[in-house]
Amino acid sequence: MDIQTSFLDLLFESGLLIDTGVDGLYGRSAQFEDVIAAFERLIDRFGGADGAEVIRFPSGMNRAFFETSGYMKSFPQLAGTVHSFCGNELDHMSLLKCMEVGEDWTKDQEATDIVLTPAACYPLYPTVAKRGPLPEGGALFDLQSYCFRHEPSKDPARQQLFRMREYVCMGTDKHVTDFRQSWMDRVAEMMKAVGLEVTIDVANDPFFGRAGKMLANNQRDQKLKFELLIPITSTAKPTACMSFNYHQDAFGAKWGLNLEDGSVAHTACVGFGLERIALALLHHHGLDTVDWPESVRKALWG
Amino acid sequence: MDIQTSFLDLLFESGLLIDTGVDGLYGRSAQFEDVIAAFERLIDRFGGADGAEVIRFPSGMNRAFFETSGYMKSFPQLAGTVHSFCGNELDHMSLLKCMEVGEDWTKDQEATDIVLTPAACYPLYPTVAKRGPLPEGGALFDLQSYCFRHEPSKDPARQQLFRMREYVCMGTDKHVTDFRQSWMDRVAEMMKAVGLEVTIDVANDPFFGRAGKMLANNQRDQKLKFELLIPITSTAKPTACMSFNYHQDAFGAKWGLNLEDGSVAHTACVGFGLERIALALLHHHGLDTVDWPESVRKALWG
Repeated sequence: MDIQTSFLDLLFESGLLIDTGVDGLYGRSAQFEDVIAAFERLIDRFGGADGAEVIRFPSGMNRAFFETSGYMKSFPQLAGTVHSFCGNELDHMSLLKCMEVGEDWTKDQEATDIVLTPAACYPLYPTVAKRGPLPEGGALFDLQSYCFRHEPSKDPARQQLFRMREYVCMGTDKHVTDFRQSWMDRVAEMMKAVGLEVTIDVANDPFFGRAGKMLANNQRDQKLKFELLIPITSTAKPTACMSFNYHQDAFGAKWGLNLEDGSVAHTACVGFGLERIALALLHHHGLDTVDWPESVRKALWG
Repeated sequence: MDIQTSFLDLLFESGLLIDTGVDGLYGRSAQFEDVIAAFERLIDRFGGADGAEVIRFPSGMNRAFFETSGYMKSFPQLAGTVHSFCGNELDHMSLLKCMEVGEDWTKDQEATDIVLTPAACYPLYPTVAKRGPLPEGGALFDLQSYCFRHEPSKDPARQQLFRMREYVCMGTDKHVTDFRQSWMDRVAEMMKAVGLEVTIDVANDPFFGRAGKMLANNQRDQKLKFELLIPITSTAKPTACMSFNYHQDAFGAKWGLNLEDGSVAHTACVGFGLERIALALLHHHGLDTVDWPESVRKALWG
């Protein structure tokens, strides 16, 4: 049994996570949810004064927008499309027969207009583009949703359905890179308050295939992505619990996000992996929040 | 333009809901989320003393459990299965070519082990069954999750992804029917506090096909399902904002939920359609919560 499995077992035994029979798909206890809620309030305290527009999208997005996003080029293996039965009563009878004899009944399911959201900010860009040019000072958004990534794993920090809290900034190059830097500074303070030792390092996305290697190298070379790393199940390979991404004008150009002077907007986003941060806290301070250090409890619950 | 469309347009214009280009799939503003959060706290105040075990499942469930549930027999048209790309680099290249020329790229997506949750309580029964016999006094659970139903519509009260808060009770026949009755009584008081005129009526589920008519009639005759109705977009056809369901021993038998004496457990559930309740409040009291009657604001925000 590897170390990830043991931590997962501890989480199941303590009741913090609930086994559903599918790796990476778990129920959560009241205490687990309480940690996430407390950490989100901490984020609010650090980010609240920025006056971001709060939007909450559900865990699914418009398939047409998903297609435009190019996600299937870069991460086809992670996406989840939503399919439904669209037949008549006769089709229904054969579907039920199929299920009865244990054959694959899912092959006739048809794709709906909905795809599971891969990152909280994906539905945002086309939404903002529809509003017309961005205001002079740029725009800032506060998002949170369940996201889906098809990567079954026994590492509790790699879940198929998990929550991402995100701030997204749109504006000039300087505006959005300043935004990204300010969060890298804030987060150091934030994580100190909750007693976690963290590092921030340059990173790359898990682009698919051999061609993806080039994209990854390019992303690293240009320092477009940083990650906040916290040891959870391994100190040698700490877990990325946050990412700080500068998209240059790639999303602006793709979605038609313009500044008032007509130039293409730059964008950046800062994402908190809420389950991963909760797990880092539980791993570091213990599985019962009552026993956490007083300073950490105070930072989280006041 | 029918009346549903106009209310939806008002919600878009006010920014409470955000158009995503797909009927029944909307973003939510901070104010909309604030109404839902306040109403959930009201539910907590009425139900909190019962000591229910709080569990939060994500918006997806184990496909094997979903298959066992029989949902595809009764509501095949509403379910959403989650599919992913499982091919190699060559498959990826033909997928991208497919997308490029605008052909259907989704046909080769393969079903994952995850299905979108159709009602918040679906993942619960197999979870509880694994724990062994129920304690003598029965068991009570407090659930909430986003649920999916494939029924695109311009009626804002009929969304494809929406939140359901649920209490689920397991025990003897008397235990669970008392539970159901107590919530029917409480809810009358609750809805009065927030200034909504409601009725509770016997109801049936939208079972699929002609054979489903019989199931529906049977359900009505036995008064297994009641709904809380509130006029939103039509007084002639008020919207079901809650349901009170008595499953007899059907779920107990299906999932192997037993009492300590070995008899099969009865189950009942009470579900709040959170978006529908929020929409009923917004429709009745106005689109800006600041202007709501003082008594309603007090009941919701204290």
